[in-house]
Amino acid sequence: MKLLEEKILSDGIVLPGGVLKVDNFLNHQIDPVIVTEMGKEFYRLFGDKKVDKIVTVESSGIAIAFAAAQYFGVPVVFAKKGFHKNVGTDVYFAQYFSFTKGDSTEISISKRLLSEGEHILIIDDFLANGAAADALIQILQAAGAVLTGIGIAIEKGFQPGGASLRQRGVPVRSLAIIDTMTDASITFRDDVQ
Amino acid sequence: MKLLEEKILSDGIVLPGGVLKVDNFLNHQIDPVIVTEMGKEFYRLFGDKKVDKIVTVESSGIAIAFAAAQYFGVPVVFAKKGFHKNVGTDVYFAQYFSFTKGDSTEISISKRLLSEGEHILIIDDFLANGAAADALIQILQAAGAVLTGIGIAIEKGFQPGGASLRQRGVPVRSLAIIDTMTDASITFRDDVQ
Repeated sequence: MKLLEEKILSDGIVLPGGVLKVDNFLNHQIDPVIVTEMGKEFYRLFGDKKVDKIVTVESSGIAIAFAAAQYFGVPVVFAKKGFHKNVGTDVYFAQYFSFTKGDSTEISISKRLLSEGEHILIIDDFLANGAAADALIQILQAAGAVLTGIGIAIEKGFQPGGASLRQRGVPVRSLAIIDTMTDASITFRDDVQ
Repeated sequence: MKLLEEKILSDGIVLPGGVLKVDNFLNHQIDPVIVTEMGKEFYRLFGDKKVDKIVTVESSGIAIAFAAAQYFGVPVVFAKKGFHKNVGTDVYFAQYFSFTKGDSTEISISKRLLSEGEHILIIDDFLANGAAADALIQILQAAGAVLTGIGIAIEKGFQPGGASLRQRGVPVRSLAIIDTMTDASITFRDDVQ
């Protein structure tokens, strides 16, 4: 998605440790124009598939997933991090190690909000090692839901998450795949879709 | 907003301790149709005011604020909870006591994302004691930003936050104000707007 690649080049900040900061349009400040376009693009990529619900992880996945949900006309469910009093105990749990945060993250989705046989599109802002995606897939499996595919805003192509998911036959589509990234330059994989 | 009141009546669950669960359309699962309508309604209520940016708190404020931002054509900034490695140290901080969570919450917004003189509309899902709103106002004051008003999805009218803010001259508009709430019935304040 050219618009997103251009925005990453103009506004993204590369930090040591392979961290890409896009917090002025995606995950702290949210640009409604580009994020709405991203939602539309996810619909172009997955709109011919069966999607009953979109699942993401709080917080930075929510706006993108919601923008997509407006086109799909289906609800978004976001997995909550940590323990929440309001969620109650009747939840599906999974755990993953977040390299960005440097520690383990526990996510949960209320059992009432995922049903057996529902077709789920996962949408998230980043795909790097695939730890968060794997945790979401675990939750879908526990619920007996069917994974339609995974839509990612920014994939770090130099980390193994995307390749691993695709090898396992999961349809992964990313709006921008970064092949190399230094503080001086960012290169994208050509012809993503 | 009739549509929201009806949705609260049909789908809301009242828990002991004055907690209203609306997690199947607002803050765990998100219904894109009703949340988009809520965004439109905030634009009807505040669209004639100067709004440069919408500010909310992660996570449950994000979708509503984003839906409003699509109508206003301005960015959303969401305050992050706790300490985040990616945010860095250059942030405005505030702290408040969350009765829902039963402990203290620290929120922050990057200094790069709030500027002196910017006109800010705060949007959030709930207003009860007003603690989160007060913390956001503190951050706006630290940044020298101007508070245009506060748009709330669901105000608990039997708790003091809304009255306290209005007494201090803050324009608060809530899409639904709950006057009484038991597990058997919920009553709304008539003629909210």
